[in-house]
Amino acid sequence: MTVTVTKLASGLTVATDPMPHLMSTALGVWVSCGSRHETPQEAGLSHMLEHMAFKGTEHRSARDIAIEIESVGGDLNAYTGREQTAFHARVLKADTGLALDIISDILIHPIFDETELANERDVIIQEIGQTRDTPDDLVFDHLQEACYPEQAIGRAIFGTEETVAGFSRADVSAYIGKHYRSGAVILAASGAIDHDKLVEAGEMLSKGLSEGSERAFDPARFEGGEVLEREALEQAHLAFAFPGVSSTHQDAFTAQVFATALGGGMSSRLFQEAREKRGLCYSIYAFSHSYRDTGLIGVYSGTSEAKAGEIAPIIAAEIEAMVSGTTGEEIARARAQLKASLLMGLELPQARCEMIASHLYNYGRVLTADELVQRIESVDAAAVKHFAARICETGNPAIAAVGPIRRLESRERFAKRFGRATA
Amino acid sequence: MTVTVTKLASGLTVATDPMPHLMSTALGVWVSCGSRHETPQEAGLSHMLEHMAFKGTEHRSARDIAIEIESVGGDLNAYTGREQTAFHARVLKADTGLALDIISDILIHPIFDETELANERDVIIQEIGQTRDTPDDLVFDHLQEACYPEQAIGRAIFGTEETVAGFSRADVSAYIGKHYRSGAVILAASGAIDHDKLVEAGEMLSKGLSEGSERAFDPARFEGGEVLEREALEQAHLAFAFPGVSSTHQDAFTAQVFATALGGGMSSRLFQEAREKRGLCYSIYAFSHSYRDTGLIGVYSGTSEAKAGEIAPIIAAEIEAMVSGTTGEEIARARAQLKASLLMGLELPQARCEMIASHLYNYGRVLTADELVQRIESVDAAAVKHFAARICETGNPAIAAVGPIRRLESRERFAKRFGRATA
Repeated sequence: MTVTVTKLASGLTVATDPMPHLMSTALGVWVSCGSRHETPQEAGLSHMLEHMAFKGTEHRSARDIAIEIESVGGDLNAYTGREQTAFHARVLKADTGLALDIISDILIHPIFDETELANERDVIIQEIGQTRDTPDDLVFDHLQEACYPEQAIGRAIFGTEETVAGFSRADVSAYIGKHYRSGAVILAASGAIDHDKLVEAGEMLSKGLSEGSERAFDPARFEGGEVLEREALEQAHLAFAFPGVSSTHQDAFTAQVFATALGGGMSSRLFQEAREKRGLCYSIYAFSHSYRDTGLIGVYSGTSEAKAGEIAPIIAAEIEAMVSGTTGEEIARARAQLKASLLMGLELPQARCEMIASHLYNYGRVLTADELVQRIESVDAAAVKHFAARICETGNPAIAAVGPIRRLESRERFAKRFGRATA
Repeated sequence: MTVTVTKLASGLTVATDPMPHLMSTALGVWVSCGSRHETPQEAGLSHMLEHMAFKGTEHRSARDIAIEIESVGGDLNAYTGREQTAFHARVLKADTGLALDIISDILIHPIFDETELANERDVIIQEIGQTRDTPDDLVFDHLQEACYPEQAIGRAIFGTEETVAGFSRADVSAYIGKHYRSGAVILAASGAIDHDKLVEAGEMLSKGLSEGSERAFDPARFEGGEVLEREALEQAHLAFAFPGVSSTHQDAFTAQVFATALGGGMSSRLFQEAREKRGLCYSIYAFSHSYRDTGLIGVYSGTSEAKAGEIAPIIAAEIEAMVSGTTGEEIARARAQLKASLLMGLELPQARCEMIASHLYNYGRVLTADELVQRIESVDAAAVKHFAARICETGNPAIAAVGPIRRLESRERFAKRFGRATA
């Protein structure tokens, strides 16, 4: 993996990652603009803008965009995150130029037609409804709010029916001008592509964007809290979180190893204890989510109403046990899992492209595979024990739950299991 | 793509698909045994067996299996379908031997421990609960039942809480002996592996399996019907199906092209009409599912209670419009989408492995990329028009729905839109 990175005079970053044996290319534009950049009234506007980019330009109708890319069998899509919005495509080698042209066009010449806007509001309100019917998604929106109450990073990316219904053409137009600035844009491609071609596309894109770099957002404060929603579902969907680390924190890789050992696979502590030994659930897993300046360590599990009281004590017990009981063997296994998943990800152009954009956003450069492997390898049992101790000492967990949750213990009681009162 | 296939004396099929530039391998065993092979009392037994294979062998405890594969960063998993059950792994090149050894071990030396069985029944009952909380999965179980009532192919793969609670060690043991026979097994690998090594593993596997080939199952009869479940959800999850074609039917590729043009992407008829023009939904798509002797053409959409009456008329109108109005341009686009998705899939070892197993099961040989492209290319607008006409003439649709579905029209009314009474 040899990535060539060029920073254009406009501030736009171009990164090319050739995979010469492939017949296809994955490419995309990552804009440093997401739900964290929104005011409360703007909640969901980054996502609305992502939708509206596909709804027609000065040169192409919404239907033209769909037809042009699909005529060559290409796939064009987008997603909105808390810190970045991505517009990405997967095409055969010969169609790379077309994909770049369409992505540039939708970003620099969108028209935000009023009729299309009215229609798209309805589509997004349907999308919000779809999330409401997916409790294992919904509980993650609730968890985010529990961790970061009344902060942009704690709000749902889609916004609410109310905010979405209120967005006007002027709002969308002003928002793109304010945030889609050349210095806030990364153009990256992996696969069958050469760097000069991508630089050329980056220059074209730069001409249509406003000047400047990423807008600042408010620093996040992990506060810990709870968001509970009693509902007549089959399962209690439970999510727990503790303060974690930012993407660039020195313990970022320790956090990954910790989460993998706690609940990252079939051999992990939580899977073995909750599913294999006790049969409490089908799904249980731990994760580490990192942002620019904050992060969280979390666990999700879905279980029946009758068993919903048993998950929290197991999580607390396993984290506490890791403070002194983490073994070198389990950490070697967690490292092997992370390393293999990294190496296998490098075989996929899309995964590589995502990684490049994430590195450039977080570190300002692309870490090599060797560096990444080295950082994973450097995490030992002592570091993980220390990390577990830090979680226990910090206390102040966040809890989110959706479903029949009568038996779920209170946040106060859960916090006390770590010997801590809640904040 | 040059696949080497060897049929061993035992009847077991070994297929190797080298991808020498990769540092990892995807491999697996596909057994011609799934929920179609079950009696009503056995409903869910194929899936239970798939779970129990991981619960310990004569040489390894359940925990050993998890630890061994994850110690090298490997990923071992399995799934149960209606016609096949798969046990598959993804490992780095050096660990291919280990992955083959573990998969052989869990298939030929399982112990089906009673305590593990009791525990796994609970886990599967939790898994069934999880499906009940995922209405866009649940509606597909209902659709299958609506298409094929009182037939093995129409039943849910997981079985029911009642059947699962009743499975004994003897049931699982007898079932593996009856169905996991050497002639019903395909061992396939894509990536960094050579054929001799795989043949050797196939020979070892053969020794531990009973003799014979796939057990016959009852031929399927697409009957058409409806399974409706009123529930207090945010969205009405709607699924519709019409008789389609079997995997080996001469129109199998026409069915794929038809489904792609109807609802396969952003430029498809249903996406344009229901989402882009009318804003009725976030998700709408069409699909063609094929089995050995039957198939179905279907559409899924999730929409709000207020809009739930508008989807069925649009589907009927678009299918009818395709009888005379299918254009060469839209079919060229659908072909390009299928072709590109095929070629991009060939870049992924797991996808290639799946394809090889599916071809061997359905055609008895592996079709080359050229053949596949040729079959896609051979479908023209005339063939698709004819296919659309066949759907309209056959009538007899199946409907499944979950959610607030008061406004959904009756199956009788939907059938009449095609000028047909229901069967």
